[in-house]
Amino acid sequence: MPAPASVHTTGVGRVPIDAKTTIALNGFVDDRLRAGVTRMLVRLQGRTGLVLSRELSANADAATLVVTCKGPGFSTPALGEDESYTLDSGRQVVLAAGTVVGALRGLETFLQLLSGDRDGFFIPAVNIQDRPRFPWRGLLIDVGRHFESVDLIKRELDAMAAVKLNVLHWHLSEDQGFRVESRKYPKLHELGSDGQYYTQDQLRDVVEYARMRGIRVVPEFDMPGHVMSWVVGYPELASAPGPYTIARKFGVFDAVFDPTRPETYKFIDNFIGEISKIFPDAYWHVGGDENNGKQWQANPKIQEFMRRHGIKDSPALQTYFNQQLTGILRKHGKRMMGWDEILEPGLPKEAVIQSWRGQRSLVDAAKQGYDGVLSAGYYIDLLNTAATHYAVDPLPGTSDLTPAEAAHVLGGEATMWGEWVGPETIDSRIWPRTAAIAERFWSAREVTNVDDMYRRLTVVSVQLEELGVTHLRNADVLLRRLTGGADPGPLRVLADLVEPVKGYQRGGQQPAMTTLGPLTHLVDAVSTDSLGARAVNRLIEQLLADAPHFMLGRDELQKRLTSWRDGHAAIARLADEAPALAEITPLADDLANMGAIGLDAIMCLSRGVVPDAAWRDAKIAALTQATRPQAALEFPFAVAMRELVFAAAEQGQLATMSPAEWLARIKTLAAPPRRGRGSAGS
Amino acid sequence: MPAPASVHTTGVGRVPIDAKTTIALNGFVDDRLRAGVTRMLVRLQGRTGLVLSRELSANADAATLVVTCKGPGFSTPALGEDESYTLDSGRQVVLAAGTVVGALRGLETFLQLLSGDRDGFFIPAVNIQDRPRFPWRGLLIDVGRHFESVDLIKRELDAMAAVKLNVLHWHLSEDQGFRVESRKYPKLHELGSDGQYYTQDQLRDVVEYARMRGIRVVPEFDMPGHVMSWVVGYPELASAPGPYTIARKFGVFDAVFDPTRPETYKFIDNFIGEISKIFPDAYWHVGGDENNGKQWQANPKIQEFMRRHGIKDSPALQTYFNQQLTGILRKHGKRMMGWDEILEPGLPKEAVIQSWRGQRSLVDAAKQGYDGVLSAGYYIDLLNTAATHYAVDPLPGTSDLTPAEAAHVLGGEATMWGEWVGPETIDSRIWPRTAAIAERFWSAREVTNVDDMYRRLTVVSVQLEELGVTHLRNADVLLRRLTGGADPGPLRVLADLVEPVKGYQRGGQQPAMTTLGPLTHLVDAVSTDSLGARAVNRLIEQLLADAPHFMLGRDELQKRLTSWRDGHAAIARLADEAPALAEITPLADDLANMGAIGLDAIMCLSRGVVPDAAWRDAKIAALTQATRPQAALEFPFAVAMRELVFAAAEQGQLATMSPAEWLARIKTLAAPPRRGRGSAGS
Repeated sequence: MPAPASVHTTGVGRVPIDAKTTIALNGFVDDRLRAGVTRMLVRLQGRTGLVLSRELSANADAATLVVTCKGPGFSTPALGEDESYTLDSGRQVVLAAGTVVGALRGLETFLQLLSGDRDGFFIPAVNIQDRPRFPWRGLLIDVGRHFESVDLIKRELDAMAAVKLNVLHWHLSEDQGFRVESRKYPKLHELGSDGQYYTQDQLRDVVEYARMRGIRVVPEFDMPGHVMSWVVGYPELASAPGPYTIARKFGVFDAVFDPTRPETYKFIDNFIGEISKIFPDAYWHVGGDENNGKQWQANPKIQEFMRRHGIKDSPALQTYFNQQLTGILRKHGKRMMGWDEILEPGLPKEAVIQSWRGQRSLVDAAKQGYDGVLSAGYYIDLLNTAATHYAVDPLPGTSDLTPAEAAHVLGGEATMWGEWVGPETIDSRIWPRTAAIAERFWSAREVTNVDDMYRRLTVVSVQLEELGVTHLRNADVLLRRLTGGADPGPLRVLADLVEPVKGYQRGGQQPAMTTLGPLTHLVDAVSTDSLGARAVNRLIEQLLADAPHFMLGRDELQKRLTSWRDGHAAIARLADEAPALAEITPLADDLANMGAIGLDAIMCLSRGVVPDAAWRDAKIAALTQATRPQAALEFPFAVAMRELVFAAAEQGQLATMSPAEWLARIKTLAAPPRRGRGSAGS
Repeated sequence: MPAPASVHTTGVGRVPIDAKTTIALNGFVDDRLRAGVTRMLVRLQGRTGLVLSRELSANADAATLVVTCKGPGFSTPALGEDESYTLDSGRQVVLAAGTVVGALRGLETFLQLLSGDRDGFFIPAVNIQDRPRFPWRGLLIDVGRHFESVDLIKRELDAMAAVKLNVLHWHLSEDQGFRVESRKYPKLHELGSDGQYYTQDQLRDVVEYARMRGIRVVPEFDMPGHVMSWVVGYPELASAPGPYTIARKFGVFDAVFDPTRPETYKFIDNFIGEISKIFPDAYWHVGGDENNGKQWQANPKIQEFMRRHGIKDSPALQTYFNQQLTGILRKHGKRMMGWDEILEPGLPKEAVIQSWRGQRSLVDAAKQGYDGVLSAGYYIDLLNTAATHYAVDPLPGTSDLTPAEAAHVLGGEATMWGEWVGPETIDSRIWPRTAAIAERFWSAREVTNVDDMYRRLTVVSVQLEELGVTHLRNADVLLRRLTGGADPGPLRVLADLVEPVKGYQRGGQQPAMTTLGPLTHLVDAVSTDSLGARAVNRLIEQLLADAPHFMLGRDELQKRLTSWRDGHAAIARLADEAPALAEITPLADDLANMGAIGLDAIMCLSRGVVPDAAWRDAKIAALTQATRPQAALEFPFAVAMRELVFAAAEQGQLATMSPAEWLARIKTLAAPPRRGRGSAGS
């Protein structure tokens, strides 16, 4: 994962991986390739427990793995890098690539091919030809709202490399924090960061770390809005007098740069001049989103400026600002990238549009000749499932773009916005879902089987752990903290069945949150993809598809429902000594109720007993009650549970219609009266 | 934990911790105290899920917690700091201390007092008077053999502060790596570290981080032996010509400084002059251990020097070296500390002796007027249980030291030597055991109840997680890697019942290991204190103490033994696709055999059936076979299992003796024929 462009299993033969495993580098070799091979070896050792030689073999013919690299490619990763490679295994594994980055991509595939059976570890015989579908495959990490350490960013880079992502979009300034040391304007980080910023050495270190893995780093300094943390130290940049303080809450704030003063551009010019030396990438993200225009409208001097220059409204003033910005960026050798708000008449053609409000702006941009990157549908902070994001394609088969227009669609980016994530939880909000998104960006459009995706995602998820990513391990940490140290076993049953509420509903369900508040509730511990719920949905689907026998998987389903019904007492006992669980006990009660309802319905189905309408209405009402979001959590099997109840109530209809017709009827009856599950880009 | 010097529960009253919780600082306030309060608040938020105000309250009378601090204490932590505090709770919590460090210690106690019930979180009404028993309470971390990142060291410092340890003994150079940037002698880190070293900025950052938490940092640069990584870049320092390479294996190497050349001292002088500016502590650890003297004996010039100066042997030459070293250290304002080998006639009295070879040298040193710190008995890398270390006292009740001599015993240090730990596993080798050792150093000599210690250790262990320590969370990571991503459930049963072999036996049981090899075997995943085994030992003890009924806890014991007997099939299935488990399956078989044997014995006991001697001999032989160490693991209930078998075989004797006599007889019969469990300082 991501699935290669072409894989042929060549049938016979396998390459054993044992203590005698050796590696030869044949062709171009540099430090980057050597370091990549060493990292691969360390992970191979970790998985196999074998002590492997770090010495490269001089005998390519006899080596287990031969890496043949034609040339260096770009010494600094850049858009348009050749990332293709081939991997051929039989007697030995031969990995061939035109560039070092191509070889690095192939080494990740090599590691994913590692298999094992009673005879030991091996690489199966395959022939792989691989190249990415899109050249821009990114992950945005917002460190403005919650700061994340250098070590954390580095482990995300390792994980990104493992799933062949190639752009870290580093969102470095926000209303809630300015995260970069500026020697030119030290009040930016001194007053705008609570002391939580990256030194210039650290920034260079991260850029180099990314370079070694074939990953570009595109910095974002959002402007003219989202600049509260800038104007704490430099209020003269704003369009209203201030003073300002670092934002602690979330949302859209009024603070916006004054685009009418030459001093503003002088400041930006100096700042970009200083910081652009640290980021070698050709692209520079200026943000440009969510400027509410209020300060501009309220400032008579700015209004006067607009009249004088014939600028009709705030979006037009922002375009004026962007035109100035483009000039500054050109001077420093950078190309502008921004959120889709910047797509207004007059925007210079070199600007790259990042679509966040919908796929439409990407299409519009492409038709107007702008390059674009899709993020709508990949907002992982909305807490949708991997399947939801997986279904979104930057360039769907239904697209009406001409090939020339389509070439403007460079790829996509998952966006990890920082309102509701801190160092302990951000990994579980990025991973493993982003691996599914990475597959969407790398693999063929036709790779869309969701079950197969989840099967492979589960394996990749565990492999990512070896890179230090904490998405799996930290769940238990949070559960143990909630129970105050008691065995969280009973809580785990519940935690495995709920999902965070989608979208930005959490804010309305928990006490007023700030950047300084705790992210240690159950909602922080649970996965966005409840595998337990998936299994239950599957079991109910199976059972109802087995009409009129209702046998398939029944025992397993009953077992699970029984554990729900009986589990709440244990959680209540835990809660007696752990007040942090107080918000959870209603969920445990709801789960118990649903268990009882489900068991009731199954008993009716298995005995052919048809309950009356009063029973049905009572159960449906109880389910509606039990599946309402609470503690920012929801049970993602409300519909399936309703189906079970309707199935019991409507058994009689099976006498007059085919099982398929009956099932369709049940599904219609059970269709949710409430808001559907979160959908792409919601 | 550590238990305070004096605690009185004052009975009535409690201080609620809720969203309205406020804190007031009354008296001396500085950045250190303010930062300590903020860190405490963040952890309090994390545990409670409450959004708490970061603003300090101006109204001390109404505040939930009032911290009254008399003065700053030492601005840089130093030996002799007043760490005492009092904590009084009733209407509000009043924490009073003479120094900021005392207040910080009290804040940790405050957090440990947090309790919860159905009415919410609260601090119970208590009166605590607390001060440490020993002023030197340390943890050594060896980053020479395996490098550990700055972030990792920082989280250990946080955890140390949580259990009131106050010295980080940072072992910074070893044969396997030189970990400090030297601008004066750059080949030290450039050629001696594989690129894994701390920059001087990072070192300063760690020292400051420790200072903020009231922790001293004592650097160790081991010499004249253990210097292979120094002489890679500077072979002229050695007593034999070289060339040298960084050591990859472990053990005692020959490389040793040439103590006869003035240039050696010039180098050391310059080096200490440079680096001592980074470490403000008054103590400087020179190592001094495990110099095998071979290079000295083989070098005619050195032999000639010894004759000329009347130096009779290698220890005497090392004392000569230490005398020169003392002068250099004095010049740079430092006091020498070293391992107990340095305690030779002629050693300057200001030297501090760290006893590693046994408690004897500490006593000898004290009698000769040397200060000393005990590490023998606290070698946590030997993988003994917490109980083992807990039983060792730096100044036992049986000590024959006079009060004046006893005052030379400054305290102790747990030593985390780095041969068998890497970033993923070091936390589980340090924690939670070191919390038990910390209690030994802080609390009264009389605090020795092992069961109570384990009860409290389990709670503290979970609390340490909030500081980022990975000792609990990484176990599952390693298990998942071993199974190749499959659910490690079946493996967990086994993992919970084994302990790593004690002492340094592992080296003999697994393939030749180097600093570059994997630390991802089952032995790396399991705890040094098998709580599962403790429970089984307890159950067997209970059952046999219940002679002649053999009822107490029988059902639970049978349940566990049955799960052992039936568990190996699932592990074997996992191993079919996960070759890394190959070394584990024999252990699973052994566990299954023990389960069957145990069930057999219990059946005999419960039915009053007396098996014959052949049965007994066969079972004992089978147990001997099943409990031999394998894969560097052992089952720590061999004796209890033997008791069970002897009990079944010897039931008849109950007719002729009291249950107590009978039990004593069983224990004698079952006493291990093999080496006992690892004991303190073994």
